[in-house]
Amino acid sequence: MPIIQINLLEGRTTEQKRKLVVNVTEAVVKSLDVKPDSVRIILQEMTKQDYAIGGVLAVDNKG
Amino acid sequence: MPIIQINLLEGRTTEQKRKLVVNVTEAVVKSLDVKPDSVRIILQEMTKQDYAIGGVLAVDNKG
Amino acid sequence: MPIIQINLLEGRTTEQKRKLVVNVTEAVVKSLDVKPDSVRIILQEMTKQDYAIGGVLAVDNKG
Amino acid sequence: MPIIQINLLEGRTTEQKRKLVVNVTEAVVKSLDVKPDSVRIILQEMTKQDYAIGGVLAVDNKG
Amino acid sequence: MPIIQINLLEGRTTEQKRKLVVNVTEAVVKSLDVKPDSVRIILQEMTKQDYAIGGVLAVDNKG
Amino acid sequence: MPIIQINLLEGRTTEQKRKLVVNVTEAVVKSLDVKPDSVRIILQEMTKQDYAIGGVLAVDNKG
Repeated sequence: MPIIQINLLEGRTTEQKRKLVVNVTEAVVKSLDVKPDSVRIILQEMTKQDYAIGGVLAVDNKG
Repeated sequence: MPIIQINLLEGRTTEQKRKLVVNVTEAVVKSLDVKPDSVRIILQEMTKQDYAIGGVLAVDNKG
Repeated sequence: MPIIQINLLEGRTTEQKRKLVVNVTEAVVKSLDVKPDSVRIILQEMTKQDYAIGGVLAVDNKG
Repeated sequence: MPIIQINLLEGRTTEQKRKLVVNVTEAVVKSLDVKPDSVRIILQEMTKQDYAIGGVLAVDNKG
Repeated sequence: MPIIQINLLEGRTTEQKRKLVVNVTEAVVKSLDVKPDSVRIILQEMTKQDYAIGGVLAVDNKG
Repeated sequence: MPIIQINLLEGRTTEQKRKLVVNVTEAVVKSLDVKPDSVRIILQEMTKQDYAIGGVLAVDNKG
């Protein structure tokens, strides 16, 4: 029954997302002792105009 | 004052969304005894690359 | 597959929540043509110290 | 460490978002006495088909 | 219409939350040119068992 | 920079949460090639009165 939302910057390939949901599901299953089928993951992509650290948009971050 | 977020797979028409927000608002109003105008609904569409059950992306689900 | 989160002020009884999830599930099922079992609802109660409209906490709202 | 998500209707310029994250970060820093670098902001744009008040989608609101 | 959710570690006083919602509302109003009454803020307190950076729960962080 | 929210039913020990955040962080780091310190996890516990599948609260689920 765990429901997981992952916010990440845009630009990952479907292959990377595939790996991500496999690995996170496995991590949750072995940590909480739940069935794989009960794990739901929502990926939420953010553009670089839509994420900021310390008041600086990712698009403006030259660090 | 209830704030409702609904995550759903992409591909619904505006007409379906129209029906959805009418019906959900009505359901909330009659269950919680609040005024319709206090109910806010956010629809969040997910692509099939961005939702997984049991570690399988919706785009890969042949079930 | 719809995942629904409802933020509401604390103080509802279990009976009210029971009614709420039945009615909202029904509303989603008939609007989106999905199976009841695919609908997941998370209720998130907020204290009156944790919700504000127009910069005023619910606990301070004498309106 | 505060993590802030702001849902807003689409259509803001990058310049407006830039101002928004600067001002909100500043507001959080001075209210909670945290370091600017610990403040993370996620902007989530909604289309007018994806937001409703009182059961009416923003796209249908002629008010 | 902006809906803002702020996740913060538990332990703030009501007075601090009062200041926080006033200041954040003001920041949003002046950045987006919206009316104060349209700004809704949800505060979500996390215990130190419920927040982690780099795989370390806040309760275990001796840094 | 990934920000992860995990909704789970209440009742896990701190030790289980410790394992969960270690394992999920590791899964995200190896899948997305990000630094561990950039991964933030929020755990959100739900009571059995606050989660429903198919219109049935977890507290009422005798399945």
